Parts: sequence; C-alpha cells; structure tokens
Amino acid sequence: MFSQDTYIKRRQILKQKVGSGLILFLGNEESGMNYRDNVYTFRQDSSFLYYFGLDAASLHAVIDIENDQEIIFGDELTIDDIVWTGPKEPLTEKAAKVGIQKVRPSKTLSEYLKSAQNSKQTVHFLPPYRAEHYLKLQEWLEVNPAQASQLASVTLIKAVVSMRSYKSEEEITEIEKAVNTSVDMHLEFMRITQPGLTEKQVAGKLQSLAIGQGGDISYPIILTVNGEILHTHTRDLVMRDGQLSLCDAGAETAMHYCGDLTRTIPTGKKFTTIQKEMYEIVLNAEESAIRACKPGVLFKDVHTLASTKLLEGLKEVGIIKGDPAEAVANDVHTLFFQCGLGHMMGLDVHDMENLGEQYVGYTEDLKKGTAFGWKSLRMGRALEPGFVVTVEPGLYFIPTLIDRWKSENKLSQFIDYNKLESFRDFTGIRIEDDIVITETGNRILGKELVKSVEGIEGLR
Amino acid sequence: MFSQDTYIKRRQILKQKVGSGLILFLGNEESGMNYRDNVYTFRQDSSFLYYFGLDAASLHAVIDIENDQEIIFGDELTIDDIVWTGPKEPLTEKAAKVGIQKVRPSKTLSEYLKSAQNSKQTVHFLPPYRAEHYLKLQEWLEVNPAQASQLASVTLIKAVVSMRSYKSEEEITEIEKAVNTSVDMHLEFMRITQPGLTEKQVAGKLQSLAIGQGGDISYPIILTVNGEILHTHTRDLVMRDGQLSLCDAGAETAMHYCGDLTRTIPTGKKFTTIQKEMYEIVLNAEESAIRACKPGVLFKDVHTLASTKLLEGLKEVGIIKGDPAEAVANDVHTLFFQCGLGHMMGLDVHDMENLGEQYVGYTEDLKKGTAFGWKSLRMGRALEPGFVVTVEPGLYFIPTLIDRWKSENKLSQFIDYNKLESFRDFTGIRIEDDIVITETGNRILGKELVKSVEGIEGLR
Repeated sequence: MFSQDTYIKRRQILKQKVGSGLILFLGNEESGMNYRDNVYTFRQDSSFLYYFGLDAASLHAVIDIENDQEIIFGDELTIDDIVWTGPKEPLTEKAAKVGIQKVRPSKTLSEYLKSAQNSKQTVHFLPPYRAEHYLKLQEWLEVNPAQASQLASVTLIKAVVSMRSYKSEEEITEIEKAVNTSVDMHLEFMRITQPGLTEKQVAGKLQSLAIGQGGDISYPIILTVNGEILHTHTRDLVMRDGQLSLCDAGAETAMHYCGDLTRTIPTGKKFTTIQKEMYEIVLNAEESAIRACKPGVLFKDVHTLASTKLLEGLKEVGIIKGDPAEAVANDVHTLFFQCGLGHMMGLDVHDMENLGEQYVGYTEDLKKGTAFGWKSLRMGRALEPGFVVTVEPGLYFIPTLIDRWKSENKLSQFIDYNKLESFRDFTGIRIEDDIVITETGNRILGKELVKSVEGIEGLR
Repeated sequence: MFSQDTYIKRRQILKQKVGSGLILFLGNEESGMNYRDNVYTFRQDSSFLYYFGLDAASLHAVIDIENDQEIIFGDELTIDDIVWTGPKEPLTEKAAKVGIQKVRPSKTLSEYLKSAQNSKQTVHFLPPYRAEHYLKLQEWLEVNPAQASQLASVTLIKAVVSMRSYKSEEEITEIEKAVNTSVDMHLEFMRITQPGLTEKQVAGKLQSLAIGQGGDISYPIILTVNGEILHTHTRDLVMRDGQLSLCDAGAETAMHYCGDLTRTIPTGKKFTTIQKEMYEIVLNAEESAIRACKPGVLFKDVHTLASTKLLEGLKEVGIIKGDPAEAVANDVHTLFFQCGLGHMMGLDVHDMENLGEQYVGYTEDLKKGTAFGWKSLRMGRALEPGFVVTVEPGLYFIPTLIDRWKSENKLSQFIDYNKLESFRDFTGIRIEDDIVITETGNRILGKELVKSVEGIEGLR
C-alpha cells in the first residue's frame, strides 16, 4: 500500500475532474471455480486499488461529491468468522490507512444509492466486466444488464484514464519490481527449456517464481512452440529440438502492478541459420521501435516504423518484393504482424482495458482503426512522460491466414507466395520489453534481460 | 475424456431418473480477473463434464426428455478466430465423441427454452454458483436472481447426486492419478520446506508440479505455519525453526478429477517432544477413522469415533478430564476439532458441494446438524461401495475460541483450562488421506505418502 496521502490526493483530483454527482466503485468479489467456495486467487479491481488501496473482497466505495463523503461499504468479521480465518485487521483500521474514516455495512449501500437517485444525483460507475457487477448494478440502480456498459459514465472513464495513464515515481518503482520478477521468470525459461519437456512443465515453474516473490502471474503464461498462435493457452505439447519456444510471461507484485515480457529462444542449444536471420529481423524492429518512443510521437507511427522494419527484413529474405514502406501503407505487414506493437501497462497488464481502448489508447481526434491488424493496435496516441508501454513486435506465420491470402492472390505485387510457402511452418517470434516514457525519450524498465542471439545462446 | 458409451449411458440413466421435462446444463464461461479478457484458468462445471465431457467455455446442453433430444448449444470458431487461436477440432466433432449429434448456435438456446416453457415443459436446472448463470437464467427463463437457488430442480439435484456419488472403476483410476500427483506435491513439500522460506515460496513450487503434470491445483493450497487457521489463504509468513508447517494441497488431472491430501511436518528437521505427542494423537484418530470406514457405517459415527480418539489423546496430555466419550457427547471436541472429518471427492474436491450438502452428505432421515462443529460436517450418511471420501481429523488451538470458552468457563468439567493455556499458541495439526469404500471396507487411494513421525523425519 502507498502512503495515506497518495490515496487522499488521488481522490481529491478525481473529485475535481468529475465535478458533481456520486462515484460508485465496485470492488471485486471472490470468484468460485467449480462451486461457490472453491475460489480462484482473489484479484481486486485495479481502479478500486488505485483510489482506495484495499485489497480484499466484497468492498464497495462511494465518493459522494456533492455531500463531500467518502465511504467504504463492507463488513467486519464476526467472531465466528475469526474462528475460521484467524484474527484480521479491522476494516475501519484498514480504511483509515488510506484516509477513509467512514465504513458502513454492505447492506446499507443499496439504500444510500437509492437516496442519491431520489435526489437526482448522477451516479457514475465504470463499465463492469464481472457478472457479479451486472447483478449489483441491476439490483441497486435498476440498470438493465444488457445496457450496463453503455450506461457507464464517460466523464468518470475519462477522469480515471487521465490519472492512471501517468505513472508516478512510486508506481514506476513498483512496476519495476514486477518487471524484475518477470525477468527472473524469463531467465528460468532460458535455463530450463529443453527438448522433451512439455510446455506446461516449464510454464508451471515460471508461475511458481511469480507466486514465490509475493504476487502471482499478471496474465496466463503463453509458453509455446507454436508462437504464431497469438492467443494459445493450451500448453500440452512436448518441446522438440529444432523448434523455437516463445514465452510471454509476466509477474504482478503483491500490490498488483504488472510486468509483461516476451522472449523467443531455440528449444535446443542454438538457433538454426534461418531462425537466427528471422530473429534478428524482429530484434531490429523492436530496438528501432524502442529508440523511436519519446514524448509527442504517436505510438501508431512507432507501430508503422516497426512494421516497416519487419518488411525490410522480410525483403532481404525474399518474401517481400517492392518498397517496404509502400507495402506497409498497403497493410502487407498484417499478414505477418497481425496484432499491435504494444499497450499501456500498470495495475492491469493491458492497463485500463476494461475502460475502453478508444479512451485509453486513442483520443477524440485519433480513432482506433477498424481494418485487420490496425483494429488490434490497442494504443495509437502520442506518448507522454510517465506513460508505461510495452513494445512487442513479432513475425507470425499463420498457415490459415497465408492460405487465405494466397488463394486471393492478395497484394501479390508485394509478396512472393512461392518463397513464403517454405516459411509456412516457421511458427512465430516475438520480443517484448516494457518502457517508461521520460521527458526526453524512454527507459527500459527492470534488470537487463538478454535478447541478442549470442546472449541467448550463451544461456542455453 | 472417457469413451462415448460412458457419457451416453450416464445421460440415459439421468433421463430415466428425472422422468420428464427438459434438463438444462449451464456450462461455465471464461472468467475475467481484472478485465474481461485477462482470464483465470478455465474450469468447466463438473456436472457438465460428467454428462457431456466437453471441456471448453461457453457451451450449454439440453436433454429434452419428452422430445428425446440431446443438444449442445455453442458456436464454431470463425476463420477470424482461428487466426488468433490456431485451428481447433470443430465442436460438432467434439460433441460426436460424447455421443451428441446435434449442435446448435448459442443464440438459438433462448428460443428453444421459451418454446419448451410455452409447451408447459418443466425446465430442470442445477443451483447456480457463477454470477453469469444467474444472468442467463434471468434472461432465458425469467428466473429472479434472488430466487434462482430455490427454483433449482430438486428432482435433478437428487438424480445427479445419486449418480455422481458412486465412482466407476474408470473414475477411480482417474482420481488415483490426481492423488498420485498430490502425493508428489507433498513429497516436494517435505523435501523443500525449511526455516527462512516463505509459505508462498513453497506453495508456488507445489502448484508448478500440479500444472506440469497436466492439470492444476484442485483448490487453493493451504500452506501455513498457523495450521489452526482453517481457511487461511494468506501465505506471507517466513517459516521458522520449531514451528509446524501444515500443507493441505491437491492436484486435479487434465480431466478434472481431484486429490486432496494434508500433512503436517516440522519446519525444521525434527518434531519437538510435545509436537510429536500431539501429532501421534491426530495420527491415531486418522488411522482409527480409516479402519472404521466400510459399507453401512454412518460417516457421522466415524466422525464421532475420531473425535473420541482425539479427546482420549488430549486426556493423556492433561487437557481433557473425565470420560472422553462423554466429553464428545457434550461436544467438547469442537473446541479442538471445529470442522468435519471429511467429504465426498470426485470431479469437485468437495464433491457436488454446489448441489447442497443436505442432498450430498445426508438423507431424508438424517439431517445435517446445526450446532457448532456439527454444522461443518459435510457428510454424515452411511458409506456405500464406490464412495470416495476424505478422512482428515485435526487438532486446532484457536486462541480466539479458547478465550471465548474459557471466559464462559464452558464445559469446565471436561477441560483443564489452566493446562490448555500452555497450548494456546500450539497452532494446528491435520492429517488427511483419500479413500474409496469397497464391498468389505476401504482402500487408501494413490501411492503411499509417509505419515509416521519417523517416516516424516526421515525425509527432512
């Protein structure tokens, strides 16, 4: 938990930004897996953590701007609970540590909100993402679940985004801790990966490091010999010599700040010649992109730069024909790099994703694209000091997509489909670091994690 | 997945037992942690797995008894999805493997149910435990979320319990796999625990074994030097020499059958004299209880037996006075053994807990107790061949509870409160194994896991 002043100040600024009405923050509940009481690891809502710092289930908070009240709604443990859970710090004391003096029983929240609605106060809430919240908004505010997202307060969303986007020094310190644990996970990945192990045997060991260091993983580990499958969560394959292994894994700290790193290594000791060549294309794109990140630069333009570097490299390999920049202008890169260059990172690994990418990664004047590839770029806006973003270009050879483009002879003025055929089963490579934008440029967060071919082979 | 015949037969029997109407099985959805798309490890509903075997999110199933239809409602991947997820086996093929020929798009389920309701068919559903299911029952069947549990079908609950309670040979094989992985986790616990490590450093390593063997943990690992806190999920403490470490951990297999074992060991190399004495009291209770488990015996009576053995031991230590059996009849044991002796285990670690303990662990004639201690006994009914249950007695010295009883001088004819005071900070011990009831007695499942003092010290 940060100091009391941090939370008090954040709420003061939020009140000024929202201006009037009542702000309702829905904390998260415990979440049952296969029955109510067999629960997943509890994860508090990130905006709740940002403004209230209280990392416990079944709490809700109200900032009543007009009546100048800040209240936590939640219940103290009964003596019967204590028999099962052991003694815990009372909620009133925890709340006082974040500068909140008023704690009321959960069951009184409904009445409080109804009375605010009766006095025509606007009740601001963020878009829900957990089903429990849809049920509560329905019960307390008569919000139809089908409309809850549209009825979320745009004023509140914009205010929260305008604060959480700029990471303070103490937040960056905490993010850096998460990145350091993530680096340890990747060093373990490089140390233990070997032919004959299953993907999940390696993934399990990495998760144990995140847990051991006091937090957990910040997202499900992607650990795969099929790096071209961008959203693979199955990890059943036995890893074989000659393959590439892609690991996209990050830790979150006990305070729930996140890290998010990717490395791609040979499953055996060495990259093959062609793997090395392709790897260096991605590495060049990643390093060029990082160098380009500084205040005022549109992240969209950095994405274009990285895409151009990727196609320049593929031209040398003979897959791409013609001018790489012109090819990118024609979206040729989306055959190999279907996703975005990166995203904001903080208390969420895709920071504030549930608030809407248009608000987080774009602006009134810069709308998110809708074309294939561009619609997956979570962030396009100009970089500013204090932003923490990931930079993660990649090359992905997806047979289904190659077949579709080839059957349409799509953009064949730029693509040598015969040459491409020999890369059909190449799989994928991604390299990802986390950076903070400074006044003059950027800084890569955390301990150094090798990414050169020689560096990686040296650890294998 | 078991053979097609297994699932077909289970559904046939279920249809006969329920008799008429339409049975709706709600499969589980992906569950977002801090935003919609950052998901927890997917866990399918266990009854859905039992009757349909399909381990994927966003599926629902209908057994329409009157119209003799079995239908899976779910959506095939689009070509756009495949770009992100890689090619997957089509849902129609997966459904065919469990003997279901009809697959329909999700969006048609609502219409199907409405038409059943219009024809006055009873729609049977199980009690929901995930908030998404409350929303769906409301949308599809106009079930008020506050009433969804009461409106669940008792006929269906009883039918499901009457089938899932009796484990088949192939299920026992699968449970035994889970127990074997759980044994490996506990051997690792005994191997790596040492003063100076945090509880979660050890817990993380155990979880990695469960993940590596193809499944995951079957419930959040309890790994604590405060074994008396029965529901502790915080694992932040540094383990110190002289303390006991209690580990309650189990794996589930890729098919989601569970194991559930507990061992208590010295954090350092050896038990102290008093720790050894207390440990052997619990071990004697556990072994006596296991010996008593056979067809026809009320599990409630085995609980009483274990409780008596615990008090007999505590009498030797000088904490208990008078006749142990009489003390148990007066519920004296609930000061030290506040929970139940065990529970059913299968696809859920507390098997079928969401269906209601009265239906799972008790009968029409044997109601669950309401007094302290007895209300936490999940299972009381007579044992039958094929039941798989845990046996897990323990001694827990809970300062809050001791203070409360002492302040009331409660049952002081049986309790030497002065002597007890010196055990105030003793913490807790639990020993737990998983057994299957056979025709003549029972069998402990899985590889042997040491539980004698000498055996444990030999591994430290």
